[in-house]
Amino acid sequence: MTLAGRSCLVLGAGGFIGQALSDRLVAEGALARAYGRRPRLRDPDPRFDWWGHDFSDDLALARAVDGCDYVFHLIGGTLPESANRNPEAEILGSVNRTIHLLDLCRMSGVRKVVFASSGGTVYGIPKSIPIGETMETFPISAYGIAKLTIEKFLYLYKYLHGLESVALRIANPFGPYQDPGRRQGIIAAAIASIFAGRPIEIWGDGTVIRDFIYIDDVISAFIAAADYDGPTGIFNIGSGIGRSVNEIVASVGQAIGVDAPHRIYRQGRPSDVPVNVLDIALARQELAWAPTADWAESLRSTAEWLKTSQTV
Amino acid sequence: MTLAGRSCLVLGAGGFIGQALSDRLVAEGALARAYGRRPRLRDPDPRFDWWGHDFSDDLALARAVDGCDYVFHLIGGTLPESANRNPEAEILGSVNRTIHLLDLCRMSGVRKVVFASSGGTVYGIPKSIPIGETMETFPISAYGIAKLTIEKFLYLYKYLHGLESVALRIANPFGPYQDPGRRQGIIAAAIASIFAGRPIEIWGDGTVIRDFIYIDDVISAFIAAADYDGPTGIFNIGSGIGRSVNEIVASVGQAIGVDAPHRIYRQGRPSDVPVNVLDIALARQELAWAPTADWAESLRSTAEWLKTSQTV
Repeated sequence: MTLAGRSCLVLGAGGFIGQALSDRLVAEGALARAYGRRPRLRDPDPRFDWWGHDFSDDLALARAVDGCDYVFHLIGGTLPESANRNPEAEILGSVNRTIHLLDLCRMSGVRKVVFASSGGTVYGIPKSIPIGETMETFPISAYGIAKLTIEKFLYLYKYLHGLESVALRIANPFGPYQDPGRRQGIIAAAIASIFAGRPIEIWGDGTVIRDFIYIDDVISAFIAAADYDGPTGIFNIGSGIGRSVNEIVASVGQAIGVDAPHRIYRQGRPSDVPVNVLDIALARQELAWAPTADWAESLRSTAEWLKTSQTV
Repeated sequence: MTLAGRSCLVLGAGGFIGQALSDRLVAEGALARAYGRRPRLRDPDPRFDWWGHDFSDDLALARAVDGCDYVFHLIGGTLPESANRNPEAEILGSVNRTIHLLDLCRMSGVRKVVFASSGGTVYGIPKSIPIGETMETFPISAYGIAKLTIEKFLYLYKYLHGLESVALRIANPFGPYQDPGRRQGIIAAAIASIFAGRPIEIWGDGTVIRDFIYIDDVISAFIAAADYDGPTGIFNIGSGIGRSVNEIVASVGQAIGVDAPHRIYRQGRPSDVPVNVLDIALARQELAWAPTADWAESLRSTAEWLKTSQTV
């Protein structure tokens, strides 16, 4: 295991994926610096070195990167829908800050950057399913464009400066510690709505197809990507299975024991692609990674956590 | 002809392509607003409405866009080599300013934006030749990334706001009015060197393959793109013919009547791709466009202009 004893910086450590990744890094014997703006849903873990700073804080970022072996970059911009209302801010806050980060990484001798890209947005409206990594990329959100542009800079910095990196195009992640109030995913939001006795809000008619992946499988992909020693720079990370939002809501109801949970259908959002299912053959082959979570069991774990957390 | 009587804004009208395009638009009966920062090599033409402003001048840009039917966006950032020294500035000056421009265009009801993208840089190091529009794009310069990111925003604004646009991925253009002092192309630089009695500077060993296209053919592609009414948003515009830099320099010598012009070989630049030849089948088919210039004759015209201009 490459990471044991290594200094690892997690940027966006207060977020859903960042918290789970920080936990796993410590469990793997790595020294984790957890960097993020938001207060964590959990109490700060004494096993982490917690850096409570904004991504725009040049000085704090430079100090955090200094001496690190691996940098896990999980800081997104905003959300696909809101990014379209201010694309310039998305580019500034996401792309330009990341270029600055990459300059810090190459100057301080970081071994590898692992970047959380977005399998759900970089491709835009796919011409065929499942979507392979070499398919055309025409995002329908500035959020997706920013993620894609960062991938291009990762490639450029590898080419020009030898800075190693891997970008993971992650499908729709779900699981414990996903905040249902942040509109990050239908699963957490649906569970929270059922528990609160509210109808589940669905954007569009519920026929849009999504590829949902359990958080444990996402985290194992990050670990595999850090370990990876080959030439590939971009991997799809999903379950490889497409489910409609209506199917997903039905599964959530079954997991909680509620038949036909109440739904409200809202007008669809233009930033939502109609279908997204990732081809994960490349990650299976190159990273020796595969999703292993059971769908029903994952939904139950997620519901269990939400029931006991303070966020509902 | 769609453009006759239409208001056309040329951004970057003081540059090499912009001057030729402005000329052609006026010849086509369009009303040309010529917008640019640099003084033109030629005197301001009374047939143009000349706007001497920087791309960063919000107020001037808004006034220039207002009431225009067609916007030809030819403002680049810097150059591939220098952009890599300050990628953040490239993104700010090129991508973010263009997002601002697109917002102005959609709000003022512009019919179509025609964008000068870069066939020589957006693809990076190609996996095969000639390069088709759907090939993977991994630029090896921040300049190329900025051009590519702008293409993504053109698509996004068409999708979200119905703003029509076409991006032309132009190969290496050459011809009269290209400033040999601005390092934009080996042909103008080579001719100028021969006339000045200086050796021709070649980056690398002269084996890199390039696709050079004469300015008249580039301009006819812009006109065809403005006229185009189909769904395609991106076209390669090149000669479709690859020539090594050594071959090109030999042709330049022949055009001027100098055998084996003196050369100096400098160390290659990392932003130079080893080979670049564009597949132009899509533009032939969809735009009903084709390059028609004769290679030797084009070189002679270029040399003739440089001989009589004040720039040598």
